[in-house]
Amino acid sequence: MTKEINVAILGATGAVGTELIDLLDRRNFPIANLKLLASGRSAGKSLTFKGESLTVEEVTQESFQGIDLVLASAGGSTSKAWAQTIVDAGAVMVDNSSAFRMNPQVPLVVPEINPTAASQHQGIIANPNCTTILMGMAVYPLHQIQPVKRLVVATYQSASGAGARAMEEVKIQAQAILNDQTPTAEILPYPLAFNLFPHNSALNELGYCEEEMKMVNETRKIFGDPNIRISATCVRVPVLRAHSEAINLEFDAPFSVDQAKAILNNAPGVKVVEDWQRNYFPMPIDATGQDDVLVGRIRQDLSHPCGLELWLCGDQIRKGAALNAIQIGELLLQENLLHPSKTVAVSVGQ
Amino acid sequence: MTKEINVAILGATGAVGTELIDLLDRRNFPIANLKLLASGRSAGKSLTFKGESLTVEEVTQESFQGIDLVLASAGGSTSKAWAQTIVDAGAVMVDNSSAFRMNPQVPLVVPEINPTAASQHQGIIANPNCTTILMGMAVYPLHQIQPVKRLVVATYQSASGAGARAMEEVKIQAQAILNDQTPTAEILPYPLAFNLFPHNSALNELGYCEEEMKMVNETRKIFGDPNIRISATCVRVPVLRAHSEAINLEFDAPFSVDQAKAILNNAPGVKVVEDWQRNYFPMPIDATGQDDVLVGRIRQDLSHPCGLELWLCGDQIRKGAALNAIQIGELLLQENLLHPSKTVAVSVGQ
Repeated sequence: MTKEINVAILGATGAVGTELIDLLDRRNFPIANLKLLASGRSAGKSLTFKGESLTVEEVTQESFQGIDLVLASAGGSTSKAWAQTIVDAGAVMVDNSSAFRMNPQVPLVVPEINPTAASQHQGIIANPNCTTILMGMAVYPLHQIQPVKRLVVATYQSASGAGARAMEEVKIQAQAILNDQTPTAEILPYPLAFNLFPHNSALNELGYCEEEMKMVNETRKIFGDPNIRISATCVRVPVLRAHSEAINLEFDAPFSVDQAKAILNNAPGVKVVEDWQRNYFPMPIDATGQDDVLVGRIRQDLSHPCGLELWLCGDQIRKGAALNAIQIGELLLQENLLHPSKTVAVSVGQ
Repeated sequence: MTKEINVAILGATGAVGTELIDLLDRRNFPIANLKLLASGRSAGKSLTFKGESLTVEEVTQESFQGIDLVLASAGGSTSKAWAQTIVDAGAVMVDNSSAFRMNPQVPLVVPEINPTAASQHQGIIANPNCTTILMGMAVYPLHQIQPVKRLVVATYQSASGAGARAMEEVKIQAQAILNDQTPTAEILPYPLAFNLFPHNSALNELGYCEEEMKMVNETRKIFGDPNIRISATCVRVPVLRAHSEAINLEFDAPFSVDQAKAILNNAPGVKVVEDWQRNYFPMPIDATGQDDVLVGRIRQDLSHPCGLELWLCGDQIRKGAALNAIQIGELLLQENLLHPSKTVAVSVGQ
């Protein structure tokens, strides 16, 4: 029987945090004790785990004593602030923020793609960006058979990507518009209900936003292929939960559609959804609450003899965040990768 | 002073029909008489033109006597059913349906792109598909300077593309979801509110839907370039009006971003909308009710040295349909292309 471990969730009250609590239960993660941590603002709230009410505690220097695994989902600055404390306490941090993802000392892991990278950890393992995970799940199985040379992606990202409050804001905006009132925007920069806009993360000098650069750089790191050429357009759409992506792939030689379908039908964590008669393909409402990434519209690229087009939908909070983090935890347990030499602290100066 | 002509709108009560009526007024189209035509179901309704109430008439064999210009927007089967009658009556039909677009005898015209094609008409001129018009407006000015070799596009298409009833359905669905009820779908195949799905037009043997093939084939015809390679992914999104498109362009040689912006800044019917500080780019709510196609996020393609990425939003009913049709009418007047030899009837057998 698997040894039970002590787990802490940092950022327990957020959209990903509550999903982590739910998934730890449903996946029967071997937990001795679960500690729910958050900022002082959320401390004192009660959340339910396995039918028991747990009180959210404010994170302090002492919070991580005796903890084996920390699932962190409270934003980059919180992760940076507590990483050293967590590692010093002998715990491993699986970090859902972008703080350490591109740090060469930190493995960036999707268990279906690069599980062996986890063994290199020095106390921190990064969970990739949601759109990157979802894309990797559909693209890597093909990339293994024939390397992807070039990838062009356009995303359709739900409000959940901006957190629980953004999801609530979109509903409030929708109700205002239905009532012939002018919607207001506080969490997101512009009204999202019945509207959409390019992803509002910071732009680099070439005009690409951070979200797009995550898809470029994180995919290269996860695939272990610095040569794959990627360009992305990230867009927020008025969907509550689950992201969609239109992906164009270019290979060095033709890749048959039938072979691609067969490969994706057998890929772990991927479900091919295609019903041409009903014109039924992956939709966010069907991907919501699902572990699998739904892939469909697998077809020859009409503009290139060595190209394929794909369409996918995946639950951004599930496989795009919480599920992947827990799968990393399961991998650490399975490969006996918890409790590394505690004195090798990662550089948190990134 | 321009001669005033007799105009009929076939399909006057639809989303495009009502926009045609409004635009004929606002653009001071030189009208002697305006006749509003529709099916028997809509006959008897009243619509306002220039402050006067006009009664919608049921279309009959006699409807087009004395008419100079018919703006048709009642669907492909209605256009096919009445085309010969219209041409025989000596009128020119500007058809918004897809019925005649790929007919070699029928010019397919975007006045900013291929105005001279209109002179070849034999009684019918086709108005292109909305997503095709919007894309052409942004791409053709660049294509003129350096030919586009390959184009990959992903669309974000509003409910208006499926008509006024679809727009209403999305609102009803949204209200149901906000009330924690299950939404129903009657006009569109699946719920669109807080959801999205690949365009539901019929699929060909390669898995491309009609909407996607329109973007491929119509663009080639309008640009007069059968060699441009195009692949498209068309998606319906829960936006009420105005379509968006993420466009990836590949040229034979590098195309500088600064030059592209300068060209698009001077392109007729195009407005460059880019504010990097505010992360403000084209959005459907800003494109709604605008004549111009809003273009932004003009940037170097990170995956190809000869590539550019673009983002656009355009009013699907305005420039994507009604405005373009009226501009064709204006072109016909200006170039004296109404009343061609009446006996040359077009083949309507396509």
